[in-house]
Amino acid sequence: MTHSVAILGASGYTGAELVRLIATHPELRIVALSGERKAGMPMASVFPHLRHLDLPDLVKIEEIDFSVVDLAFCALPHATSQAVIKELPRDLKIVDLSADFRLRDPAAYEKWYGKPHAALDLQKEAVYGLTEFYRDEIRAGRLVAGTGCNAATGQYALRPLIEAGVIDLDEIVIDLKAGVSGAGRSLKENLLHAELSEGFHAYSAGGTHRHLGEFDQEFSKIAGRPVEVQFTPHLIPANRGILATVYVRGEAEVVHATLAKAYADETFIEVLPFGDHPSTRHIRGSNFVHIGVVGDRKPGRAMVIAALDNLTKGSSGQALQNANLMLGIAEETGLMLAPCFP
Amino acid sequence: MTHSVAILGASGYTGAELVRLIATHPELRIVALSGERKAGMPMASVFPHLRHLDLPDLVKIEEIDFSVVDLAFCALPHATSQAVIKELPRDLKIVDLSADFRLRDPAAYEKWYGKPHAALDLQKEAVYGLTEFYRDEIRAGRLVAGTGCNAATGQYALRPLIEAGVIDLDEIVIDLKAGVSGAGRSLKENLLHAELSEGFHAYSAGGTHRHLGEFDQEFSKIAGRPVEVQFTPHLIPANRGILATVYVRGEAEVVHATLAKAYADETFIEVLPFGDHPSTRHIRGSNFVHIGVVGDRKPGRAMVIAALDNLTKGSSGQALQNANLMLGIAEETGLMLAPCFP
Amino acid sequence: MTHSVAILGASGYTGAELVRLIATHPELRIVALSGERKAGMPMASVFPHLRHLDLPDLVKIEEIDFSVVDLAFCALPHATSQAVIKELPRDLKIVDLSADFRLRDPAAYEKWYGKPHAALDLQKEAVYGLTEFYRDEIRAGRLVAGTGCNAATGQYALRPLIEAGVIDLDEIVIDLKAGVSGAGRSLKENLLHAELSEGFHAYSAGGTHRHLGEFDQEFSKIAGRPVEVQFTPHLIPANRGILATVYVRGEAEVVHATLAKAYADETFIEVLPFGDHPSTRHIRGSNFVHIGVVGDRKPGRAMVIAALDNLTKGSSGQALQNANLMLGIAEETGLMLAPCFP
Amino acid sequence: MTHSVAILGASGYTGAELVRLIATHPELRIVALSGERKAGMPMASVFPHLRHLDLPDLVKIEEIDFSVVDLAFCALPHATSQAVIKELPRDLKIVDLSADFRLRDPAAYEKWYGKPHAALDLQKEAVYGLTEFYRDEIRAGRLVAGTGCNAATGQYALRPLIEAGVIDLDEIVIDLKAGVSGAGRSLKENLLHAELSEGFHAYSAGGTHRHLGEFDQEFSKIAGRPVEVQFTPHLIPANRGILATVYVRGEAEVVHATLAKAYADETFIEVLPFGDHPSTRHIRGSNFVHIGVVGDRKPGRAMVIAALDNLTKGSSGQALQNANLMLGIAEETGLMLAPCFP
Repeated sequence: MTHSVAILGASGYTGAELVRLIATHPELRIVALSGERKAGMPMASVFPHLRHLDLPDLVKIEEIDFSVVDLAFCALPHATSQAVIKELPRDLKIVDLSADFRLRDPAAYEKWYGKPHAALDLQKEAVYGLTEFYRDEIRAGRLVAGTGCNAATGQYALRPLIEAGVIDLDEIVIDLKAGVSGAGRSLKENLLHAELSEGFHAYSAGGTHRHLGEFDQEFSKIAGRPVEVQFTPHLIPANRGILATVYVRGEAEVVHATLAKAYADETFIEVLPFGDHPSTRHIRGSNFVHIGVVGDRKPGRAMVIAALDNLTKGSSGQALQNANLMLGIAEETGLMLAPCFP
Repeated sequence: MTHSVAILGASGYTGAELVRLIATHPELRIVALSGERKAGMPMASVFPHLRHLDLPDLVKIEEIDFSVVDLAFCALPHATSQAVIKELPRDLKIVDLSADFRLRDPAAYEKWYGKPHAALDLQKEAVYGLTEFYRDEIRAGRLVAGTGCNAATGQYALRPLIEAGVIDLDEIVIDLKAGVSGAGRSLKENLLHAELSEGFHAYSAGGTHRHLGEFDQEFSKIAGRPVEVQFTPHLIPANRGILATVYVRGEAEVVHATLAKAYADETFIEVLPFGDHPSTRHIRGSNFVHIGVVGDRKPGRAMVIAALDNLTKGSSGQALQNANLMLGIAEETGLMLAPCFP
Repeated sequence: MTHSVAILGASGYTGAELVRLIATHPELRIVALSGERKAGMPMASVFPHLRHLDLPDLVKIEEIDFSVVDLAFCALPHATSQAVIKELPRDLKIVDLSADFRLRDPAAYEKWYGKPHAALDLQKEAVYGLTEFYRDEIRAGRLVAGTGCNAATGQYALRPLIEAGVIDLDEIVIDLKAGVSGAGRSLKENLLHAELSEGFHAYSAGGTHRHLGEFDQEFSKIAGRPVEVQFTPHLIPANRGILATVYVRGEAEVVHATLAKAYADETFIEVLPFGDHPSTRHIRGSNFVHIGVVGDRKPGRAMVIAALDNLTKGSSGQALQNANLMLGIAEETGLMLAPCFP
Repeated sequence: MTHSVAILGASGYTGAELVRLIATHPELRIVALSGERKAGMPMASVFPHLRHLDLPDLVKIEEIDFSVVDLAFCALPHATSQAVIKELPRDLKIVDLSADFRLRDPAAYEKWYGKPHAALDLQKEAVYGLTEFYRDEIRAGRLVAGTGCNAATGQYALRPLIEAGVIDLDEIVIDLKAGVSGAGRSLKENLLHAELSEGFHAYSAGGTHRHLGEFDQEFSKIAGRPVEVQFTPHLIPANRGILATVYVRGEAEVVHATLAKAYADETFIEVLPFGDHPSTRHIRGSNFVHIGVVGDRKPGRAMVIAALDNLTKGSSGQALQNANLMLGIAEETGLMLAPCFP
């Protein structure tokens, strides 16, 4: 059976990544693509790498006939997303890739995103889209909120450890390195090739990065008490990939065993042998997560290192995985592409 | 129906690329992987990006039971390849990715590769593996010789033009730019990141690059007279991709129309609208070829620009496409992956 | 003796490169830096790599007291440059890095830059700034027009050959590869890291690139008859460097000897041994030009390959070299920095 | 006055970097270059970017007449270095760039480098070469041991803080990111462009990296008690640059003020305004160190982020700075080159 999907905001990188993945998905058909500023253009003009596909031209959202759409992916900027989704049919299944429906607490949304939420009723309905931990809710959900790509990486490293109570909740440091595509296709001086290549730097250090809202919400919920991590993101001269080096207090072998057990049955999460280091190049372009655990020379301390592709498992792959669940399709359909190395 | 395949030389980049492609191929099963120096190791140690797959460990070639193999991919270095294939069962279907069986003329082989060919009887039997132009022979063949990746790129740009007689055969310049993965996983100083990144250069200019042997053979055969092109390869700081800028004498619109017509029914060859420029980033990781034609300000001159991924369409994707034909599988099976951009 | 210089347009890459070079120049002192949109900011905010220097803050041009300025570098966009220079004191020495004063013929300017020239009297006065070929004029000049970076590269390869009459003037192909910094610090989608890295492509092929105006003017002037080259620029994923592969008709050894002789006494031009290939990484960050000559297997054909750094010898280094001449300083002062490799 | 220097091990990256820096040094003259495997070759063959310089050919060490050498730079691999230096004249000034003379304690050397030290008497004599902290000893020294490049970066961030007692000595995490040139010009699979570019990973995590020997020695010495840091290095796809993100416990403003005061008079160390993030691209190719301090949202915690160029301030620039002191030359001579950006 084939399901019809629309992609709103198809002229950005996460939109293009959705098309790339759906291109070989046997049960999904793309019936509409929107792009406000590029409405009227063929997708092949906006993303020439997709020119071999038979795709609808980009249109404005209001031109889409949602009565023939089974599920819509919303790959719009935050704030825009809530405004758009508010106007969509209330029975349309939606996977939102923006930040708009990730945070349960309206005050938290306002704190991290700088303005009040404009669709609070929808926010209540939304399910947090970290598939492996919200599978049942997602399957039953109508509106699923994709997670932040950095937030996903840190959570894969930490959730089972917090759940199992094997690490000190007050001593967690996430030093995260990310490629540039996570910043999107926006025209900013600091995203130019000449600015970015051949160098690397931290940014938003000290507790100002918005994905902290997700960490705080999720970790505190699991722990049943407030948990605040330290989090320093860095921008690395590569296009895809996030590597989170997470410093924890706990017995390294126990940490490793806890993660290995938690993910034993997960198709997309690979816990490496104890002591091995993952690399972003080994998950590039795929939906897989590689997690390594190394013990420190200081007893009782360990590093959990998690790697995923921000555009795939960190956003569009995750979105498709959730859409599969929502549509009753086998979860891994269309997502078994092997990483593209070298 | 599932066919069993072996990959000889699976510890190099073309071997890994074959595994990546076959990973989602519904009708092929990998039953053996060889790697001389790495025999005994799991593939996940040699290529951690493939660790999610259930693959046989690397073995030595002599350990493989070829009676259960329907087709073997030979991704070995040239010279080694002919020695190995000589010893394989004479009824085994083989797709060879080395240079050993590309040249019909033993003297040409010796000229370009520096030593006499050691398996002349096999060489006679071999079919040149440029799929779109040797489809029937490949379908009927037992031993198919994959083309050089540079040679493939230049031929996609030029074969229909030579065939149709629309360009001057004595005035062809191929200025080619290639990423580094074509040089393989070999330990050479000039392939180090610190040597290669942030710079670019020509090499083997002036008629010394071995792929000229293929150009000479194929173009002369089509033309029915000797054709010698000028060919300058350049090494570019990117991993995948070849872009050939081919300078020809002929009417630009005729050149474009000739190519568009020749490839109209080809799944993997996309001729862009007249005047458009292809880019390697738009075919990265895929089996597609993008070809653009631009007219020069000097009347009667044109540039044909062809882009493909050296590891996919330039070697392992081509090999799989040929294997599909040899095994009676639909030609494009397992090869419809969209390019990975950004 | 110390000369006072101003840099107009100091917030772009060529402006920053001028500051980098002048930083260790013993006879120049920067007394003013302008940047329209960034006026009021310290240079260290705009270019943190220059923060160790004691530099004036950025101001608007009208705030500069030119009575204390011995020479002004104009690193403004074309069209802006002519408007600004028109208003500057008529006795101020100026090195202009824009395209505005490169073309002698007003009609040529209008053809390539799309609008009439607005300062024709100044254009008449201007000296073309390719130092090695206009040394006396530059020394005596008041307004020197820096060349295009691509135009400089092609001319270093070709001028002595045209002068000496050793190549066929109707059969010249310049296939040029350039890093991205030549496109400046402008916010364009195609200059983003995610768009540009890992891929390469031709652009403005077929005779539409503006630097053809310079090639036509200069080569025709030397030859005493119209000369039109074919020229295809390519964008390469590296920040600095231009490599021009120039296809010529002529005896390769004669070509080599002609270039070697022409540049024998030039400090910054290195002609490599016959058959050697230059690389952009070997001139990176420096004012040097490396030129190689290789003979083709087709008799009477050769490739001249020239490499330089677009920001240094291709613009700001050239500008400083010219300023030295205009101020009576030894030509190579401040320009002997060795290339930065790796 | 001109001093004569020799560079032993001039065929590696730190050797080449020494030549690059000395090229514009007004008081040093290179009289000998050694390279065991490349003896007999001109330096221009080994490093074409240095071809404009008038340099002696590479020779074997035993061919050098040390009676005319005022100071030798030893850029040899560890273990080799101690064997070579043992045989050099006992009154020759030496700056060693290897790891051989960094550790005071023979047991520590054996622990980190896997074999006993073979020149214990020389080791006693050696001065640790972190210029800003051992200036007097270096000025008076005969044998100065260059620091590890990672070790230098971490120490610039931490030494003044440990000295001043403003941070918790038991809670220091150094998460370090480094470009690839620090690994040298050695033929290792993991240093190939195709392996390294487009990806990033941690290595030697958990207390196994050799530079920990230096951290332990120096920090414990300053503190007067054992100090053990956590240290995780990462390999980043860039050639030059180290960025250390150091997590400390202490008041962020106090941390910043302490560093600002400690480095107030240092030419090469720039402490950025409180809250600013340094970047490796802004010190690239230079001898400068940029240090930023950011407070965390968790009270009493801060991040100190230090950036330097591993080949310059991390090894060859540091070596030259020390050589200047040893020869009575102004310390910053030849080292004021501005960073090369973009």
